[in-house]
Amino acid sequence: MMMAGTVVAAFALLLLAASGGAEARGRRPSSLWPVPTDEAGVLYGSGPGSGDHRNVISECKLFWYDNLIDHFSWSLGDKTYKQRVFVCDKYWRQDNGVDGTRGPIFFYTGNEADVTLYLNATGFMWENAPEVGALLVFAEHRYYGESKPFGADMSNLQYLTSEQALADYADLIEYLKTDFGAVKSPVIAFGGSYGGMLSSWFRMKYPHVVDGAFAASAPIWSFLGEYPPYDAGSFAKVVTYDATREAGAAEYCSMNVRNSWQAVRNESGTAEGRNRVREAFRLCDGVPLESDDNVTALLYWAQTSFDYMAMGNYPYPSSYMLNGKGDLPAFPMRVACEYFKEPDMPASELIRALAQASAVWYNYTQNQECMDYRKGVNPETQSVGIMWDYQFCTEMFMPASRDGLHDMFFPQPFDFGYQIENCQKTWGVTPRPYWVTVNFGGKDISSFSNIIFSNGEYDPWRGGGVLQNVTNSIHAVFIDGGAHHLDFMWSTKLDPPSVLNARAEERSIIQGWIAEGYKRRGAAGPRM
Amino acid sequence: MMMAGTVVAAFALLLLAASGGAEARGRRPSSLWPVPTDEAGVLYGSGPGSGDHRNVISECKLFWYDNLIDHFSWSLGDKTYKQRVFVCDKYWRQDNGVDGTRGPIFFYTGNEADVTLYLNATGFMWENAPEVGALLVFAEHRYYGESKPFGADMSNLQYLTSEQALADYADLIEYLKTDFGAVKSPVIAFGGSYGGMLSSWFRMKYPHVVDGAFAASAPIWSFLGEYPPYDAGSFAKVVTYDATREAGAAEYCSMNVRNSWQAVRNESGTAEGRNRVREAFRLCDGVPLESDDNVTALLYWAQTSFDYMAMGNYPYPSSYMLNGKGDLPAFPMRVACEYFKEPDMPASELIRALAQASAVWYNYTQNQECMDYRKGVNPETQSVGIMWDYQFCTEMFMPASRDGLHDMFFPQPFDFGYQIENCQKTWGVTPRPYWVTVNFGGKDISSFSNIIFSNGEYDPWRGGGVLQNVTNSIHAVFIDGGAHHLDFMWSTKLDPPSVLNARAEERSIIQGWIAEGYKRRGAAGPRM
Repeated sequence: MMMAGTVVAAFALLLLAASGGAEARGRRPSSLWPVPTDEAGVLYGSGPGSGDHRNVISECKLFWYDNLIDHFSWSLGDKTYKQRVFVCDKYWRQDNGVDGTRGPIFFYTGNEADVTLYLNATGFMWENAPEVGALLVFAEHRYYGESKPFGADMSNLQYLTSEQALADYADLIEYLKTDFGAVKSPVIAFGGSYGGMLSSWFRMKYPHVVDGAFAASAPIWSFLGEYPPYDAGSFAKVVTYDATREAGAAEYCSMNVRNSWQAVRNESGTAEGRNRVREAFRLCDGVPLESDDNVTALLYWAQTSFDYMAMGNYPYPSSYMLNGKGDLPAFPMRVACEYFKEPDMPASELIRALAQASAVWYNYTQNQECMDYRKGVNPETQSVGIMWDYQFCTEMFMPASRDGLHDMFFPQPFDFGYQIENCQKTWGVTPRPYWVTVNFGGKDISSFSNIIFSNGEYDPWRGGGVLQNVTNSIHAVFIDGGAHHLDFMWSTKLDPPSVLNARAEERSIIQGWIAEGYKRRGAAGPRM
Repeated sequence: MMMAGTVVAAFALLLLAASGGAEARGRRPSSLWPVPTDEAGVLYGSGPGSGDHRNVISECKLFWYDNLIDHFSWSLGDKTYKQRVFVCDKYWRQDNGVDGTRGPIFFYTGNEADVTLYLNATGFMWENAPEVGALLVFAEHRYYGESKPFGADMSNLQYLTSEQALADYADLIEYLKTDFGAVKSPVIAFGGSYGGMLSSWFRMKYPHVVDGAFAASAPIWSFLGEYPPYDAGSFAKVVTYDATREAGAAEYCSMNVRNSWQAVRNESGTAEGRNRVREAFRLCDGVPLESDDNVTALLYWAQTSFDYMAMGNYPYPSSYMLNGKGDLPAFPMRVACEYFKEPDMPASELIRALAQASAVWYNYTQNQECMDYRKGVNPETQSVGIMWDYQFCTEMFMPASRDGLHDMFFPQPFDFGYQIENCQKTWGVTPRPYWVTVNFGGKDISSFSNIIFSNGEYDPWRGGGVLQNVTNSIHAVFIDGGAHHLDFMWSTKLDPPSVLNARAEERSIIQGWIAEGYKRRGAAGPRM
């Protein structure tokens, strides 16, 4: 999930929107980092690779479902759109049950990207399907990937809401269950990040449709008035934490990063200094750096790299944060922090280190001749950013801020009025900041049931997540050394014991839901 | 709740829509029936009257809430409408709690009429407020009464859906709780008939907003594929049951009623016969009876009277079925059946009896000079009928039928294709017959909690209701000798013991929810 809501992130998104996108040639980077060559526990794979991508789409059938564009009013009448769905039945037990009952359904509630990203990345679903004989279904979120209600027309985003997406999934599942002869099959919803928010909300609102939900790294408590108070958002705090010894990074890193911003500003005060900054960042010819706004834009651009590296702080080279278009090194925050490891770094070194650290993210291909802070990372990420900004500007108004004290950045107070105005200007919409809380309960979710919320130590989104058990059927799983939904990824030898334990616990809870689901329907379930 | 979905009822509604409405002068009828003069257990009242109306609106403050017209998309942006809400704080405990916690909120989820009808009729809320110190809130359903998003404009009904109505209520409650300093107050939803469906669905979808729901006579299982199979709807069966000895009516009644339809048809085969029918029904000059369609319309009209009398089969004179505009006698079905009490009634007597029985309903004022089957009962009922027909034609597609074998009417199979086509023709919409089941779970509601479903023996809607406990927190309460949500009405001396027992049970369950609600919020609750 992209972060929106800080001045920063919103700015980054607009920047992305304005750019044509940088190249993404997919070349493997030369090794700044070790590449694992021997992996265990992998059931699928296209040769050596990271834990967050296997090319398993060939195991699935593509299916287009005509779903209603508006489930909650009749303003569009029967108007439907083509929703993209992948159905993968390789492991589905269809006819060997004691009473003919078929295996359960593992349903991925697609989020803000092409659904194939989640299909290929969510190893947890693939690796656990065989044991319970599950059918895998990956449904694309409306308006993303190839599931566009109004095609390329960007003037009709008004039906891009979480409720409509959930209604899509409910409708689709009821159809599939009937069509596939699986009316007695329990359904487990899976989702990571915003997809995890969706899967948990799906269980809350449609418990008759899904028997349980596994929400990985889902910051459902990031809304106004919930957590954090927006004058000191936790997102940046965890990014900062990832740049400390405690998180395995070099000593002095966060301190140096904190000092680097002002160093760039100071240096940019003169023409000579600006040239040195240009040179350090290898800025392309013509990229402006004359005004304060230019410098601020450069700093935001550099800052964004830490946000992504923190989310993608996986123990192996990973492409997930790049939407599968390239690889980040293992523990990218540690790699970036290597440039900041010396005590008492002078300004010129801080500037160079900031440039190098941000290049771990921006120059992941290691073949960029020069850098342009006005460009995004790649076109895929950019398009996601545009849509997500609309969602931020309507329902998903998750405020965040930085203060440079509790985090290693510079003061960026959350400006409510500015954000609202900006949304009105950009999209012609006014956010409904409290609606998600009214609709989905905020912190008052004890009346719901059968949800796993997992969160990782390194993941900046954990601050808005559910970190303690809410009831005996709403479970919190915490993963030491885990980044953004690490537990969802494919098994590798580089997995820390914490994620192995987490997965075992999650597996056991889900098996309980499946058993309960068959029982509730008076079915024996397939023979295991 | 008006019945829609049978050929009959739909026809009646169209009939009502076409007419200018009959007079409703509000004169008390002369006594065909005993009027109770001594009533006990009544806390409010405007002199002697029935159990289903006290003029308590003077205890309440009128409040207009700006609610969003579309909660689930941004197609209307911020466009709001004025929702009418009555807040009655006479019994609310505001400052004498151990920890300052205020009393609970009893919230009526308004249904398909002017909300003042429910305010004045729902004695259960008023009579139980003092003991727990509850604030009473009665919210009007969008598009009914004076809560019209588009005023009198009938071309903008597309936002008239149950989900939008529930979102209205959630939004309103969150606002009220904050504004009234009642964030720790448990909220109990109340609703009867369609309002009961709404209150139960409200608890299902927003358990964080309402701690429990009391759904009286809510036929939530009346949708396609649930109950009943539409070739033999139970509605008409219960109407028929109400015309039997077992239900306190005269012997032979249902048998005679069953024979009366054909008697009218046969008699209408000749000009002389038609004159006799005219005379029996006291049809006004100019009311046509020449064609088969005319005769059918007359029969539907007569049939509708039984439907309403069955719903309104209360043990005292009651105005509820007439939206407070007049009185029906106590046990109107028994009164109507008195005309059918003889064995072996000849055709001429059957025809006269049918005319007299239906006049118990249509001529409730007893001052109509002549009858016109093309007219409705009164303008209020008519307007409700139009709106409800739209709801039937969109989400509330509750199929029903009659066969003349299991019921005392004549064959009226449910014609799916015809109904769909008729909705398209009338409103330009296509029903989504399965959506309510997908959305609210149909019979699979065991994952929800804290709901009371009560149903009455005489109420035709009970067939689609929840008649057995679903879990230990989804309760079914059955009331022997009860009509349409009799338990909601004001206490009177004529209440059967069954309804006293039902109310005691309901009261005890609700008190449990309130205690649980305070505990969940870490509040002591007001001193009792």
